[in-house]
Amino acid sequence: MTTRDHCLALDAADALAPLREQFALPAGTIYLDGNSLGVLPKVTPARLQQVVADEWGRDLITSWNKAGWITLPQRVGDKIARLVGAGPGELVVTDSTSANLFKVLSAALAIQHAEAPRRTRIVSERGNFPTDLYIAESLARQHGAELVLVDDAHALAACLDERCAVLMLTQVDYRSGRLHDMAALTRAAHDAGALTVWDLAHSAGALPVDLQGADADFAVGCGYKYLNGGPGAPAFVWVHPRHVERFWQPLAGWIGHAAPFDFTPGYRPAPGIARYLVGTPPILSLAALECGVDTVLAAEPFGGMAALRAKSLALTRLFIELVEARCAGHGLELVTPRDEALRGSQVSWRRAEGGYAIVQALIARGVVGDFRVPDVMRFGFTPLYTRFVDVWDAVEQLRQVLESGQWRRPEFNQRSTVT
Amino acid sequence: MTTRDHCLALDAADALAPLREQFALPAGTIYLDGNSLGVLPKVTPARLQQVVADEWGRDLITSWNKAGWITLPQRVGDKIARLVGAGPGELVVTDSTSANLFKVLSAALAIQHAEAPRRTRIVSERGNFPTDLYIAESLARQHGAELVLVDDAHALAACLDERCAVLMLTQVDYRSGRLHDMAALTRAAHDAGALTVWDLAHSAGALPVDLQGADADFAVGCGYKYLNGGPGAPAFVWVHPRHVERFWQPLAGWIGHAAPFDFTPGYRPAPGIARYLVGTPPILSLAALECGVDTVLAAEPFGGMAALRAKSLALTRLFIELVEARCAGHGLELVTPRDEALRGSQVSWRRAEGGYAIVQALIARGVVGDFRVPDVMRFGFTPLYTRFVDVWDAVEQLRQVLESGQWRRPEFNQRSTVT
Repeated sequence: MTTRDHCLALDAADALAPLREQFALPAGTIYLDGNSLGVLPKVTPARLQQVVADEWGRDLITSWNKAGWITLPQRVGDKIARLVGAGPGELVVTDSTSANLFKVLSAALAIQHAEAPRRTRIVSERGNFPTDLYIAESLARQHGAELVLVDDAHALAACLDERCAVLMLTQVDYRSGRLHDMAALTRAAHDAGALTVWDLAHSAGALPVDLQGADADFAVGCGYKYLNGGPGAPAFVWVHPRHVERFWQPLAGWIGHAAPFDFTPGYRPAPGIARYLVGTPPILSLAALECGVDTVLAAEPFGGMAALRAKSLALTRLFIELVEARCAGHGLELVTPRDEALRGSQVSWRRAEGGYAIVQALIARGVVGDFRVPDVMRFGFTPLYTRFVDVWDAVEQLRQVLESGQWRRPEFNQRSTVT
Repeated sequence: MTTRDHCLALDAADALAPLREQFALPAGTIYLDGNSLGVLPKVTPARLQQVVADEWGRDLITSWNKAGWITLPQRVGDKIARLVGAGPGELVVTDSTSANLFKVLSAALAIQHAEAPRRTRIVSERGNFPTDLYIAESLARQHGAELVLVDDAHALAACLDERCAVLMLTQVDYRSGRLHDMAALTRAAHDAGALTVWDLAHSAGALPVDLQGADADFAVGCGYKYLNGGPGAPAFVWVHPRHVERFWQPLAGWIGHAAPFDFTPGYRPAPGIARYLVGTPPILSLAALECGVDTVLAAEPFGGMAALRAKSLALTRLFIELVEARCAGHGLELVTPRDEALRGSQVSWRRAEGGYAIVQALIARGVVGDFRVPDVMRFGFTPLYTRFVDVWDAVEQLRQVLESGQWRRPEFNQRSTVT
């Protein structure tokens, strides 16, 4: 049986341990919610002060050129590209995940409409993150397409037929933490004549992603989870070079124009991924996101995403082992796959009752996870800053909450706006 | 003839002069480009530090409730509403001006398609800001509509016929500074059965705007110009209550859902303007924008937008008078209307040659305006922080640049990316 001392020994032997020093972690907290909002990098406040006081306050409009503001979406995009198996110049940071999904799904549908007009289905999972489904539903209404949702991932293969235009999936399920095999599903989709749209919200910065290797078609992702970009950080969009110039994306804003500063009345899309830009880049948010992305790139000398993945799996494996051993008999059911090839960087548990209140009681004890309706308790394990001893201590708090029945107190059962 | 001493006397008598103290203005600079990027409010750096260090760094996800992050788009929206004649709960801050224009123009076209399907024209001006035209062009392609552009504002009335679905205008022209009569044009559009979409990029915070009074249908606007929200600050969107629930806007993201935290697979739009929200709100940018909007609201005890407008006109009037008197014979042609009822808060001049270089030579002397192709020199007069003596000093520098011919030097004639 693993002991707390053993966990401390694992931390002492952890080559990635120094990466934790990059973060301003709140005292007295074990933060297992980096899958919702990543923590603050220590360098971010000073960098933001520099952008605000010097680049904006002192240099004003000259910073568009002098400080490289105008190419910030590409500069930060090239950094993220290194984390997701994309080439330089293939990925930009812009807008929200939802808006980017609107662009790429529009492009995928337009390509299929031109080449295979009888393909009118967007296939996804009913459990996909709602914004993905809402955007697909909106585009389906608009394009006369049909959104087909499966309840079980095993049913996806059967939907890859001559009616399928696009397979749209989130690589790691936000609720269960289940990981899709991007390469295999993309191959199956292509074999069936469909295009793929991947949402990397819970995979970019969490595990190795290889968009080029998987031969994916389109991808979007989130800046504020594992990339530590701050609340509501801008998102990113990638399009395979074979598709990128085949379509005007519908949000044809001036920054995606071939020559924005010519101020010409007719739209002419920029070459490459720059046409997926829309409005004036959000400089403060981009600067904060760059700091966050740099905290992940800092793992490169230590083995990069592969090393982070190994630690992530060691953390989630330990958490499952300890919960099952130390919280046995309390009705917790593992939602996340036990098979590590199918697991993202989070572990979720289901309980017949009290899931919300148990998470609240844990937060009151300084162990921050979150709850997702109807019954899922989620715990994210960000390998950049989570220690093995944190896992031990979190499980000990969970054990005490369950054994004491403390979670039944009224104050832990009051729902707030954001859960 | 106005003298520098007279300008100093005007500043000494200016009841709005204390408002300038709100800003961290760069030393040695006369900044006449607040119409492109507003200056830094003094409170912004400290507020951002608080958001970053305390709300994000320390309180993490609890700030969605505790710090009111989740309602920040509405809170800042309600403040902007006070500046543009909109009611509380009618306006939200979200996305970029371009993306918001996509939403409202989609809504306007959908409403007309349902009620008057033979109205298929979007009418605008060829000189409208390019992003507005590009978004309209994209939607026209998609909806089988037609974008009709006039070269002269006087030709707009003739286009308001039974084919016109939407009249889409920017209230103040970004190049000439010409101001449209929103109430009269909206009335004419409505009389003809058309809907109106107004871009307030150069009017919100610059002059009194009365959306409700003008009976406008839709409006969008920019956060980083006269609202001082910082580079790439988020934009805003307003929809008249009579239209707001008539249409799903196509960017149907989860934050615009009636119950985002129910995580249900089917889209159900939020009541009211909240359905125009899309992805997770950009908290850092919203916090900075709130500081900027507060600098404009600080004018309320001094007479608010009406008082700011009076000063703005006094500044532009003085600038025109001094340039015409002191720079006579140098080929400058006034582009901005001499009629003050038709003038925004900027003054533009045209010159047969050298416009770009003259602006660069002025910037080298600490007088910051900008240049817009093909031949327009723009000077913005933000009444919150521009002094009468600044106008005098700027004109003196312009006089010296012109009389010396210094602008002909090679270093002032090299174009950079952003002009």
